[in-house]
Amino acid sequence: KMVKNVDSAAEQFLDANPQFAKQYYDVNFRPKVISDLLDNSRKTALDVSKFHDLTTVEESEVLFDLVRDIQDNLQMEKSVFNLMRHLSFMLRADRMSLFMYRQRNGVAELATRLFNVSKDAALDDCLVPPDSEIVYPLDMGIVGHVASTKKMVNVPVTSFYSEFVDELTEYKTKNALAVPIMNGKDVVAVMMAVNKLDGPHFTAKDEETLNKYLNFANLILRVFHLSYLHNCETRRGQVLLWSASKVFEELTDIERQFHKALYTVRAFLNCDRYSVGLLDMTKTKEFFDLWPILMGEVPPYDGPKTPDGREIIFYKLIDYILHGKEDIKVIPTPTPDHWALISGLPSYVAETGLICNIMNAAEDEFFQFQKEPLDDSGWTIKNVLSMPIVNKKEEIVGVATFYNRKDGKPFDEMDETLMESLTQFLGWSVLNTDTYDRMNKLENRKDIFQDMVMYHIKCRKDEIQNVLNTRERWGKEPDECEEEELQEILVKSEVLPNTKKSEILEFHFCDFDHSELDLVKCGIKMYYELKVVDKFHIPREVGAPFVFTAVCLSVSTIAQKRLTGFRTKRCGDVEKKDEYTGDLKRYYTDLECMAMVTAGFCHDIDHRGTNNLYQMKSGNPLAKLHGSSILERHHLDIGKTLLRDESLNIYQNLNRRQHDLVIHLMDIAIIATDLALYFKSRTMFQKIVDQSKTYENWNDWTKYMMLETTRKETAMMMTACDLSAIAKPWEIQSKVALSVAAEFWEQGDLERTVLEQNPIPMMDRNKAADLPKLQCGFIDFVCAFVYKEFSRFHVEITPMLDRLLNNRKEWNALKEVHEAKMAEIEAAKKAKEEETAGAKQASAAQSQSKTCTLS
Amino acid sequence: KMVKNVDSAAEQFLDANPQFAKQYYDVNFRPKVISDLLDNSRKTALDVSKFHDLTTVEESEVLFDLVRDIQDNLQMEKSVFNLMRHLSFMLRADRMSLFMYRQRNGVAELATRLFNVSKDAALDDCLVPPDSEIVYPLDMGIVGHVASTKKMVNVPVTSFYSEFVDELTEYKTKNALAVPIMNGKDVVAVMMAVNKLDGPHFTAKDEETLNKYLNFANLILRVFHLSYLHNCETRRGQVLLWSASKVFEELTDIERQFHKALYTVRAFLNCDRYSVGLLDMTKTKEFFDLWPILMGEVPPYDGPKTPDGREIIFYKLIDYILHGKEDIKVIPTPTPDHWALISGLPSYVAETGLICNIMNAAEDEFFQFQKEPLDDSGWTIKNVLSMPIVNKKEEIVGVATFYNRKDGKPFDEMDETLMESLTQFLGWSVLNTDTYDRMNKLENRKDIFQDMVMYHIKCRKDEIQNVLNTRERWGKEPDECEEEELQEILVKSEVLPNTKKSEILEFHFCDFDHSELDLVKCGIKMYYELKVVDKFHIPREVGAPFVFTAVCLSVSTIAQKRLTGFRTKRCGDVEKKDEYTGDLKRYYTDLECMAMVTAGFCHDIDHRGTNNLYQMKSGNPLAKLHGSSILERHHLDIGKTLLRDESLNIYQNLNRRQHDLVIHLMDIAIIATDLALYFKSRTMFQKIVDQSKTYENWNDWTKYMMLETTRKETAMMMTACDLSAIAKPWEIQSKVALSVAAEFWEQGDLERTVLEQNPIPMMDRNKAADLPKLQCGFIDFVCAFVYKEFSRFHVEITPMLDRLLNNRKEWNALKEVHEAKMAEIEAAKKAKEEETAGAKQASAAQSQSKTCTLS
Repeated sequence: KMVKNVDSAAEQFLDANPQFAKQYYDVNFRPKVISDLLDNSRKTALDVSKFHDLTTVEESEVLFDLVRDIQDNLQMEKSVFNLMRHLSFMLRADRMSLFMYRQRNGVAELATRLFNVSKDAALDDCLVPPDSEIVYPLDMGIVGHVASTKKMVNVPVTSFYSEFVDELTEYKTKNALAVPIMNGKDVVAVMMAVNKLDGPHFTAKDEETLNKYLNFANLILRVFHLSYLHNCETRRGQVLLWSASKVFEELTDIERQFHKALYTVRAFLNCDRYSVGLLDMTKTKEFFDLWPILMGEVPPYDGPKTPDGREIIFYKLIDYILHGKEDIKVIPTPTPDHWALISGLPSYVAETGLICNIMNAAEDEFFQFQKEPLDDSGWTIKNVLSMPIVNKKEEIVGVATFYNRKDGKPFDEMDETLMESLTQFLGWSVLNTDTYDRMNKLENRKDIFQDMVMYHIKCRKDEIQNVLNTRERWGKEPDECEEEELQEILVKSEVLPNTKKSEILEFHFCDFDHSELDLVKCGIKMYYELKVVDKFHIPREVGAPFVFTAVCLSVSTIAQKRLTGFRTKRCGDVEKKDEYTGDLKRYYTDLECMAMVTAGFCHDIDHRGTNNLYQMKSGNPLAKLHGSSILERHHLDIGKTLLRDESLNIYQNLNRRQHDLVIHLMDIAIIATDLALYFKSRTMFQKIVDQSKTYENWNDWTKYMMLETTRKETAMMMTACDLSAIAKPWEIQSKVALSVAAEFWEQGDLERTVLEQNPIPMMDRNKAADLPKLQCGFIDFVCAFVYKEFSRFHVEITPMLDRLLNNRKEWNALKEVHEAKMAEIEAAKKAKEEETAGAKQASAAQSQSKTCTLS
Repeated sequence: KMVKNVDSAAEQFLDANPQFAKQYYDVNFRPKVISDLLDNSRKTALDVSKFHDLTTVEESEVLFDLVRDIQDNLQMEKSVFNLMRHLSFMLRADRMSLFMYRQRNGVAELATRLFNVSKDAALDDCLVPPDSEIVYPLDMGIVGHVASTKKMVNVPVTSFYSEFVDELTEYKTKNALAVPIMNGKDVVAVMMAVNKLDGPHFTAKDEETLNKYLNFANLILRVFHLSYLHNCETRRGQVLLWSASKVFEELTDIERQFHKALYTVRAFLNCDRYSVGLLDMTKTKEFFDLWPILMGEVPPYDGPKTPDGREIIFYKLIDYILHGKEDIKVIPTPTPDHWALISGLPSYVAETGLICNIMNAAEDEFFQFQKEPLDDSGWTIKNVLSMPIVNKKEEIVGVATFYNRKDGKPFDEMDETLMESLTQFLGWSVLNTDTYDRMNKLENRKDIFQDMVMYHIKCRKDEIQNVLNTRERWGKEPDECEEEELQEILVKSEVLPNTKKSEILEFHFCDFDHSELDLVKCGIKMYYELKVVDKFHIPREVGAPFVFTAVCLSVSTIAQKRLTGFRTKRCGDVEKKDEYTGDLKRYYTDLECMAMVTAGFCHDIDHRGTNNLYQMKSGNPLAKLHGSSILERHHLDIGKTLLRDESLNIYQNLNRRQHDLVIHLMDIAIIATDLALYFKSRTMFQKIVDQSKTYENWNDWTKYMMLETTRKETAMMMTACDLSAIAKPWEIQSKVALSVAAEFWEQGDLERTVLEQNPIPMMDRNKAADLPKLQCGFIDFVCAFVYKEFSRFHVEITPMLDRLLNNRKEWNALKEVHEAKMAEIEAAKKAKEEETAGAKQASAAQSQSKTCTLS
């Protein structure tokens, strides 16, 4: 009792001397308190039950505990629970609750997370498990109001709020104080205190206290919320990147592509199970399915349809099971009573295109989900998120449905966003599966046309009998004959070389004098003379049809459409490759010879009678396919296509290395016939010739040349062959030149009529009289170099150069005759002009004569 | 003085009665202090300069300020600065600094963020701007050591650390205390105090103080760090989704696709500028470029190469400028001295495939970046992040280089991750641009083959002279003639109908007796008899070649490969569509008649002599292209291809609506010739016939029928025509049946040789004797229904049914003869069996006779 009095006196003194009291406190108490609070090692939680009065609580300790809680990465709910327990004591509130804000289907709602927290409560009793959540829409209740207005409310009497939760929980809410917890402008949660214990309602002071502690609650929830958002965004990025990785792996069909992507992202989806239903994309029915409906024989479809008017038919379901033992089920043509379809949700999504986020599926009124476990594991459908997979044309191609978020909570807006990103990506990627289909179709169409082309251009069985008359002689087809039997035919029919020197080896050989069949026979002979038939095991029943087909393609089939002269210019000359190789064979291998001769046969296959420039100007698909040397690459293409046909493949018995080389040489030889490339490479040819002069020893030179394909200058060889008509005797050259000119004039006509352009003089029929002048230019600027250098290279070629020079003289003489005539006309014109103006027109008409006089 | 004594007495009392003192404090002081601290409205920062002693500092207020700082979303640096200022006072440290941890190029480093914080410092003086950062590698200095070990260090003497920063800052570090700030297991920053003011070094107590405050620093940095990570991940997701949206918009080339994606994500990249260089993908040179090098004429390339061996050539640069006025520059074939290439960095990245993250570009020793401003805006290169764009084949297709992060800091590992996700996505998406190229190539190849097919199958100019002899008669080509001139030719050559009834209208018409040319003329005649030539303005110079081409394609070209009998079966019958339409024309429109006749001409174009099943089994591209009715869809395809050629398009003067209808009818008519569909729809045909019987009035029925294409039953009409040989006089039927059978046997032979399967009896040459039995079955199960129902439909058809039944009798008779013969043989065999075992084999051989006896 005495002590009490002394205490009372001291109290009076201290009350009277606040300055002293504060000083004493700062020195003696405060450091100790703060020091204790900051001590990291002191981990024991406060025993809140011992608090007896606000003023006696070591309040700071509570705060520091909170900071440590957050720092130690503890459960958000535990930290907030501790704070709320403390708050409910300070506010004298009977209970406090925390409601988390989230959105589903674009609609906000609040869900109980901590419920009925009182100062003596235990966390486990207050933490609401996901399946016991009470969910509030924002348009009802106190908490909904707080979340909508984002402002604190103090409700003295709850009569004007219909609290349906009270009925659920059999608890009467009399008054309440609730406050929103924000992250920037977004509501994260609502905290509510109900039923003031020591008064009729919460006071202004309670509001103040709650507001003060909000900072801490905010901080806790902010870290929690940011972690959650970060986790969701990270998963979203992963889902997109992994899907992309699969989608771009290869071009494939929609089923495979979707499956690869959906399987690879399974770990990021954070749900128990998901299924994808693929929709039939058929828009219009075939007449044989449509007519029975039109005739009233079959009832028309009256089920739901996609927004673009398709009947909703799931032709395949893929079911990904992640709970328990991982499994994938593929259900082709699932029946409508399959558990994944029977609810009607996928059809609804396919019909409306809406994203549907459903919680407590078993209790859903609109869709009837299976309430029983789906399998032996006892797993049941709880929460469902379903969305359409929509392609870039806005068509729904499928429906993806996700079941039961891993943590038991319903899917929220972040899940919606993540899954939507995935389905959006998948939907867009249908461009690739559509492309795959288109590509296959295109490839098949190309193959069909290619087959048709081969059918039409290949030497027919009856045609080959003109060369290999096996029916007559042996009573069977060539491919049924022994090689000896075929050989006998070739010898008997004088196709095979006899003792006298073959005519094709003569420089003056002219195919004008030969029938198509003769040319075919000459062609076959060339292979024999090169001695490659036996060496490379060219089957005789293949070689003959190959030469027949190639020759016909270069000559007759095309000639029908074009000028007969074309035949002379294009064919034959190349066959006389032998003419040159005759001497060059020393350093050309047999394989190289065969490649070049074959290239010769193929080098003008399917020529169009017009040049590369015309293909470009007329927008021919050839020009779109090949960037340069357009026709040459086409001749090569078709030549190789012939050689891919087993019945024409003269290379079929070559080994891999030989085959690659022979094809490579053909590539070079045929492309090289593009004169544009000749101008590129002619200085190089000159260098080779120069180099050859530095060798004194003929054998050393031969050895040196044999080492490297480049040195053999296949390209210039091809040019020399292609131009050889210019070095033929004048009778031949003059005929060939006219027929080539005629082909040019035909193109000139086409340029005028089709392209509506004026042709260059060389192709202008109206300038036909200039042919001799043009030929002189052609010799001077294009041909002379080739034969001059080749003669320097091999002296045996000199006769060709001589003939070229002779032809130059002939053309020049014609040119001079023409020029004299023109001068004469001009003079006459001038004279007449001075006489009458009427004579003018007549003279002009005469100068435009369409005839080219050659002699 | 007295007061002092009283104070002293009070002090003594309080010291002696701690229980009382604490109670008094709790009641009178603590609530006030805490209340002040929690007061949100009190925003004034603490004046740290007034602190004189730790014990007198209102320490809690500092802590609560910190919490508010974080909560108010203030700058991280400001919050930490406040904490450090307070700490430097408490630790008696001369200065404190904060170093942020980050990674670049996969290597960790620390960068000064807050430097030289003392108790009196101002934030602006301590906050290090990005371009003044000092960067520490982790393998040197105290802070590097702390970040590596993740442990606090107290360094009493710094001699054993080489502090290069001291030299930079002209400050002597004597002793230091440093601690790592963690986020989970990751270092986020290092905080360091240097030079203890009131002692030789920092004490254990200082370590304790620092540790205590670490909780707060951690929390601040954690929120900061999480926000940053969340922002980066969100941007990454956006970058991927937006890129995908563009990539999947359409198939296009690499330049366009990259540009679309790179442009659309610009806002998320958070940098001033970026450029993308596209690499030449050429792997091998053309021979004409290669040879000059091999010949030593051109020096070989000795610059850097990509890992897959390509020369590094940037053929295009796209430069995105986001600082100042947004702009995009496209630089085709940039020179190596372009500012974006001159540093050598893009080439280095293209060569090594490495990601290069460079800060302070101007001072980089390895790469020479332009130090001067790039443009008038004065913008210079500071930080650079460059990385390869790699496709799924692991080839580097381009290099993306990003300049100057928006906030001035160097690019960190999050930037590397984000940009890498983008370039990875772009690289993978090259599948689509490659596909685009392949697709165009394929399309062009298809077009080339299609052109070649058309060239080969189209009626030639000289061929059409057999029908329209315009050269002989008018001295010009058909397309140069007037319609009247052509008409005159047709009349004169008796192609056009004369007075007597046309032979083709007779049921017994048999094309066996007609030449190909006759059939062409008949075909042309049909269009005239239908009176559609003038009505639908079919140009005569188009109609004749069309019929010629279609007939030849269905008959002669194909017949070369197949049986002559084929010709009878397939061609001609359909031309006699008129036979039926003759009476049905009452409710068929002229347009419908023309469509059906044209469909008849096209319905067997390019038939392969084998059936649909064979196409499937042999893997023909036709079967890959068409899922059902394979050959029928092919006939339709080629027929339409013919009609797309202007010189064959008999529909060229129809209007849009007419054209669509006529094509639609052809679709139906030609597909309907698939017998598999006949079985599907024949009950429906019966229904139509039943319905027709319910009309008493013939005109009403006609009107009813005319309303709807379905009711006219084009499909069954086509079947009736296609099967008509079965209803021809016996002489014709027996010939046709044998030729059809011969075609089947040919397929059977192919099945045996090519597919290595046993054919069905119908196609088995060894079961030829069963033909009469098979024909009976064919009549009973396929044909009878058609003609029975058609006769019910139109009484005029009855003669066909009669002949069908007659043919049935004939076949049956043959069947019985054969069966009798077989029974006889069987009996003989049995008899012989009982005699000798040797006779057995002879009998079997006889029963396998290859000959089918018909009479």
